[in-house]
Amino acid sequence: MKKIFGTSLLLAGMTVLAQTKEDSIQFNRISTEILNNGKGYSELKELTKNIGNRLSGSEAYEKSVQWAEQKLRDAGADKVWLQEVMIPVWVRGRESLHIRTSKGSWKNIKMLSLGNSEGTGGKDISGEIIMVKSLDEYEKLPTEKVKDKIVFFNYPFNQEHVQTFIAYREAGAYRRTAASLTAKKGGKFAIIRSLSSAFDDVPHTGNMRYQENSAKVPAITIGNTSADELETLLQQQKIIAKLNSNCGMKGEKLSHSVIGEITGKKDQEVIVVGGHLDSWDVGEGAHDDGAGIVQSIEVLRTFKKLGIQNNHTIRAVCFANEENGTKGGKQYGKTAKENSEKHLFAIESDAGGFSPRGISLEMDDIKRNQIKSWGKLFLPYGVYNFEGKYSGSDIAPLHEMGVPAAELVPDPQRYFDIHHTAEDTFEKVNRRELLLGSAVMTQLIYMIDKNW
Amino acid sequence: MKKIFGTSLLLAGMTVLAQTKEDSIQFNRISTEILNNGKGYSELKELTKNIGNRLSGSEAYEKSVQWAEQKLRDAGADKVWLQEVMIPVWVRGRESLHIRTSKGSWKNIKMLSLGNSEGTGGKDISGEIIMVKSLDEYEKLPTEKVKDKIVFFNYPFNQEHVQTFIAYREAGAYRRTAASLTAKKGGKFAIIRSLSSAFDDVPHTGNMRYQENSAKVPAITIGNTSADELETLLQQQKIIAKLNSNCGMKGEKLSHSVIGEITGKKDQEVIVVGGHLDSWDVGEGAHDDGAGIVQSIEVLRTFKKLGIQNNHTIRAVCFANEENGTKGGKQYGKTAKENSEKHLFAIESDAGGFSPRGISLEMDDIKRNQIKSWGKLFLPYGVYNFEGKYSGSDIAPLHEMGVPAAELVPDPQRYFDIHHTAEDTFEKVNRRELLLGSAVMTQLIYMIDKNW
Repeated sequence: MKKIFGTSLLLAGMTVLAQTKEDSIQFNRISTEILNNGKGYSELKELTKNIGNRLSGSEAYEKSVQWAEQKLRDAGADKVWLQEVMIPVWVRGRESLHIRTSKGSWKNIKMLSLGNSEGTGGKDISGEIIMVKSLDEYEKLPTEKVKDKIVFFNYPFNQEHVQTFIAYREAGAYRRTAASLTAKKGGKFAIIRSLSSAFDDVPHTGNMRYQENSAKVPAITIGNTSADELETLLQQQKIIAKLNSNCGMKGEKLSHSVIGEITGKKDQEVIVVGGHLDSWDVGEGAHDDGAGIVQSIEVLRTFKKLGIQNNHTIRAVCFANEENGTKGGKQYGKTAKENSEKHLFAIESDAGGFSPRGISLEMDDIKRNQIKSWGKLFLPYGVYNFEGKYSGSDIAPLHEMGVPAAELVPDPQRYFDIHHTAEDTFEKVNRRELLLGSAVMTQLIYMIDKNW
Repeated sequence: MKKIFGTSLLLAGMTVLAQTKEDSIQFNRISTEILNNGKGYSELKELTKNIGNRLSGSEAYEKSVQWAEQKLRDAGADKVWLQEVMIPVWVRGRESLHIRTSKGSWKNIKMLSLGNSEGTGGKDISGEIIMVKSLDEYEKLPTEKVKDKIVFFNYPFNQEHVQTFIAYREAGAYRRTAASLTAKKGGKFAIIRSLSSAFDDVPHTGNMRYQENSAKVPAITIGNTSADELETLLQQQKIIAKLNSNCGMKGEKLSHSVIGEITGKKDQEVIVVGGHLDSWDVGEGAHDDGAGIVQSIEVLRTFKKLGIQNNHTIRAVCFANEENGTKGGKQYGKTAKENSEKHLFAIESDAGGFSPRGISLEMDDIKRNQIKSWGKLFLPYGVYNFEGKYSGSDIAPLHEMGVPAAELVPDPQRYFDIHHTAEDTFEKVNRRELLLGSAVMTQLIYMIDKNW
């Protein structure tokens, strides 16, 4: 009995080794196929150069829907369809910010209204700027000091975080709340220092929201150089600002997320890989999130091209309206629930098309540890970090329904130089870095499809 | 006795924990200082924009020597000096390549002579091009098929290696040997496809060498797009090439490496951190290896700024002539030997100023394992890979003398898009990625200085 038991253990051990070898070969096939023949980079060029930026509700977004539909078909998806989503429509229009000293002449400052902010309705709004360095400092200001003023929230992006997303989250509190905080004390509008790791004058837009019952005063952002200059000026003298903007919400509109899938051979349980098809209305939405879109489509293409027989249905989802509403993600979750679709796993790529370094896992410890146990397979592809416990905003509704969720973790050093700016262009994306991200997502989905 | 032994173990364990905590705090101080106040990025801007490329023997190289001397003083080095080195002088001059079909007109092709190649002496050399895909294929060609021909070594950079340095080494065999192989069979000159991971028409220069007694026929390189076009043409018809170039070796010259050090508090044993000050004569030598230079100077600056009391002498070496002779590295090793200087450790940064991912260790297993045992300290800075067993070419002479050697391992995906080209400019370097490399080298030197 002892001997038989020993032999069984040995056989079990050999099976594990053989499995690992087989997986390692499959990982290599996937990476080789994508690095040699990947379509993601040329597809990203089409999306960014032929269509460009594509805010929800824009004509460009609708073009990108048609484009994504075609690319999913080209990738060999068995089924491609559009999922209806009601999305908010926010429009920027003309806008400008000028400042002057008490006796000086007006100077134009590069700026962007924050997404979802109301504007000045095309009229000039002007007043004296007051500056605060933190939310704490603002809270301590008596209402009379803020009333009729323009509040400059001059909170800098903290360069010392190696993980730039931490700095982004910290500074993000200002972007989200500045307008309502300003309104609450009677201020005219809010200026925030951009959430930017770059030492330049490029303003970074991004979503803001008004608190319930808040007066909808405008919120705008300026680049780091302008913020530095304004800071220096304000330490010396009184500064008047004048804003003229036409942005604002223009109701809702019917639009679409785009979905393609390759059907499971064993069952119809769904594995989701996705990114968001919309972008802000500046730049080309290349890293954010054209990268995630083409990487997700590449996953399907690679399964088909290599003839990997997927047990479960693998679905690439190009979500609508992540930037200023996440309506696409919410609708996807709602529809899955209504149709009682079972989802096995979901992964999102929405942190830029940079070299992959890890996979963040939002799931129970049993599943997390199983994925971690595959870590050695990923190491040759530069992926070593499985410690994150978050996933992405578009698959959050799925996760809330109990679906294990994940996010691709690329190198975070360059992202916040160009995030939500005119500089987020195709030229900032490296072919090999982008393709490696697709390879890693394909490898992970191969493992989950095989083992779950 | 047992109890006392237990207590000792506990105390020892507590000491290790306290040490690790102290080191972790020091690592964070180093990274914080460099990410907030690092000078490397602005110094790299000076080196690349005010001086530009700086091939050994050029006036620009001599300017960079003065510049480095000043920067080492600014960093707070206790002692700064120039080390004399005899360097080879290679000059490019005017050069052009034209091709035509038997009956067509000449078409200009973007090209670069390889470094150290002889030219045509300003005369046209022309002949029919024959193409080979590999060294194997070339070897099988009978001499009469090569005689008086121009050999196009059309070996592509292998995109499927995740570790691009492997592809670079493979393709490097062509760059080094093409000229002498061509000469051996009576060919007129060699054209090689650039060692490039980019899909563009940028030629990548780099070092070649003639075998002993080889006729010194020219060797030139063309970008990937031109190589693709030439390949297609050659499959259809006979193609004539015409080269006119003025490059060649112009003897030797006295020049200098630049060295700065902060003196050890306990002894004079030396820890070296270095890069090479010279670059190729195109682009700005930003990643290769301006990055390594400013990162090495930053190490000294950070020790001084944070007041870390170094036990051993820490020396930043800006090596002369890495690209086409490695005379600086050789001279440094020779001088160290002559002066019986003891070296504790040497690390080089010469793989680009990209996000650090690892440290490659060329040393005995005891030292290697000790450094690996510090791995957890490095993980928050994105450094996880200690598996490499090489170091750098400038510190190879030190390693041959028994000195444990290492190299910073940055992310390798973008390097061979721009390596040795007109595109290796300051704009291709990201501030945070560059500074993180300095932080990791400073952290490692802090550990070695403290523990060895």
